[in-house]
Amino acid sequence: MLIANAVLADGTQRHIDVTGGRIAALLPASAGVPARDDVLDVAGALLLPPLVDGHIHLDKTLLGLPWVPNQATGNNVADRIEAERKVRATRTVPEVETGSNLVRQVVAGGTLHMRSHVDIDNQLGLRNLHEVLKIRDRFRGLVSIQIVAFPQSGILRSPGTADLLDAAIAEGADLVGGLDPVGIDGDLDGHLEAIFAIAERRGVGVDIHLHDGGESGIAQLIAIAERTTASGLQGKSAVSHAFALGSVPADVAARTADVLARAGVAIMSHGPGGAPIPPLALLHQHGVVVFGGSDNIRDAWSPFGNGDMLERAMMIGYRANYRHDHELEFAFDMVTGAAARILGIEGYGVAVGAAADLVVVEAGSVAEAVAARPRRKLVIKAGKIVARDGVLAA
Amino acid sequence: MLIANAVLADGTQRHIDVTGGRIAALLPASAGVPARDDVLDVAGALLLPPLVDGHIHLDKTLLGLPWVPNQATGNNVADRIEAERKVRATRTVPEVETGSNLVRQVVAGGTLHMRSHVDIDNQLGLRNLHEVLKIRDRFRGLVSIQIVAFPQSGILRSPGTADLLDAAIAEGADLVGGLDPVGIDGDLDGHLEAIFAIAERRGVGVDIHLHDGGESGIAQLIAIAERTTASGLQGKSAVSHAFALGSVPADVAARTADVLARAGVAIMSHGPGGAPIPPLALLHQHGVVVFGGSDNIRDAWSPFGNGDMLERAMMIGYRANYRHDHELEFAFDMVTGAAARILGIEGYGVAVGAAADLVVVEAGSVAEAVAARPRRKLVIKAGKIVARDGVLAA
Repeated sequence: MLIANAVLADGTQRHIDVTGGRIAALLPASAGVPARDDVLDVAGALLLPPLVDGHIHLDKTLLGLPWVPNQATGNNVADRIEAERKVRATRTVPEVETGSNLVRQVVAGGTLHMRSHVDIDNQLGLRNLHEVLKIRDRFRGLVSIQIVAFPQSGILRSPGTADLLDAAIAEGADLVGGLDPVGIDGDLDGHLEAIFAIAERRGVGVDIHLHDGGESGIAQLIAIAERTTASGLQGKSAVSHAFALGSVPADVAARTADVLARAGVAIMSHGPGGAPIPPLALLHQHGVVVFGGSDNIRDAWSPFGNGDMLERAMMIGYRANYRHDHELEFAFDMVTGAAARILGIEGYGVAVGAAADLVVVEAGSVAEAVAARPRRKLVIKAGKIVARDGVLAA
Repeated sequence: MLIANAVLADGTQRHIDVTGGRIAALLPASAGVPARDDVLDVAGALLLPPLVDGHIHLDKTLLGLPWVPNQATGNNVADRIEAERKVRATRTVPEVETGSNLVRQVVAGGTLHMRSHVDIDNQLGLRNLHEVLKIRDRFRGLVSIQIVAFPQSGILRSPGTADLLDAAIAEGADLVGGLDPVGIDGDLDGHLEAIFAIAERRGVGVDIHLHDGGESGIAQLIAIAERTTASGLQGKSAVSHAFALGSVPADVAARTADVLARAGVAIMSHGPGGAPIPPLALLHQHGVVVFGGSDNIRDAWSPFGNGDMLERAMMIGYRANYRHDHELEFAFDMVTGAAARILGIEGYGVAVGAAADLVVVEAGSVAEAVAARPRRKLVIKAGKIVARDGVLAA
């Protein structure tokens, strides 16, 4: 296959020679289109690397079901955990089906790699993990799904959960998760001790949800950085949300950023609507890898979201007050290159030798693609077209 | 025409009998579809009133042109005014064409009424007004366009602007605008005196941009309320943005809301991404009409936006941290009923006697329509289909 007349993110126009599912050559378009019978001429459309969703909840979504109104009685994390239990108790379609609906939708939108948190607590056991493992098997070869064993009900306040998290890793989860060590479990050291013990024993990374704000959130970030260093997990540790970084003065955020950068702790943001957004550019300047994710998509937590990572980059840019092209490109990197680095995707990118995983859109530049979120003209996986004009191939 | 099997916002299923461009009857669907040869069966789709954009800038958009990177050198209103001058100086396609591109796009998305601010200053004169008047003429009968004579460069710091605003009303603008009386003109009384003098003389309403935050913004809101009452403009006065209400303690916002409600001053919000969002529900509870608008769409101010008012309701809801159905319905009202009231649209709504201006989408409820922003299946103007599946009829 030769993808002809594609404009790359750097503005150059190229023909992409795809062989054996990989990019064999990036030829200058000025040379004209070679005479071959496998030419796919994209006529100056923009060719992007595949989108990466660094934070999704495949087991939570209700996508494809009739509308389920939000039932939370209050406005904090604990209220939403309770509301989710109610929704879960009444759902009749298994998570493998709704999660598959979501995977199909996001692949059609150009997402070919994702990190999904999966709820684990002492009521659910490993049920949701088993559902998401089925989804991973179902879509193997099309999309890579990294699984975080996520203690949605806490660890200490849901006795037995630590053992379940450990068992989840044994059964195929890739990372250990966490949740507001202070806000939910009320025991910073106990919560982190449980997470990092499993991570060390199993040789896996960590990705911890942290909604707790202000000075408490900052103290937890610093404790996570210290544990990360002590466990030798630099580069394999992430904190999702970290609203605290957006709720403290810039000098406090900058000092915390230095601590996170030294410890190799990355920060995931979905561009929160109702919570403070971390100072993403400041974090980046201080050496912290920041990456993007969808978070909740039409589930008991949020009615919003659709898994479109160009739209997510737009939302991040909108919340961060980005307007210049270099800022929109930074938001784009959060849902492509930076997320791929954190997820450890090998052979990622539009480069010779990389996997021929590609997304084609009608846009004049990456900045325009983020702002306008055009329909995905083509999604290509290992050199094969898997979606066209937003519709998954059969 | 009989629109059969439509689900209304209240959940009831109806047949809508359209005669002479108006809704003649809302028949219970349980009675079965009448035997007529002009039946349009929408098969349980959701029927909505037309969307209303309470704040758009038809003269600023660059929609349809190749991507123009943002050129502002700083991050405040004055910097962006300068950047816009640069963009304007180099554009070769007249505003009537780019503005028409935007009108076509928003009509295809179900917007049939809008309030457009139009830049007026002592360099531009009435040039942009004349462009937007041409747009209004071009689309007359399809979409109603209310025009605000908007002093984008200030009034006192752009000498001669007050006379131009007055002349704009004489030439067809519908309201007098304003811009940060303190932040831009540095003269609260002088700025408001100029605006309200014209409004009183010409018998028109006012709609004032107010980005100024904190206590200064609150003081300006109170001054606007006082002027509104003194000029007898209750119900014909609006403040756009009013970020200040989102940057002060709730008790200050509540007291200010009482002042605004007594004076009949409405508040427009687009759900700002990088500025504080006013406490919309609190304002509503205190009797202030809050309505929605797009604000900037792909122009020198913002790369974002597309004029889709269902997406705008979503953005408002996302920023306001709305999750429950009644909250999403409130955001929807901001871009339909509440905006129609502020714009003074007669015969608005899905009711017997109202104009047969309707939007059909595939959604189970208004809340779902806001969260999912489905493609507009049909847009109907005065009983005629003017767009189908997001594409404008020829």
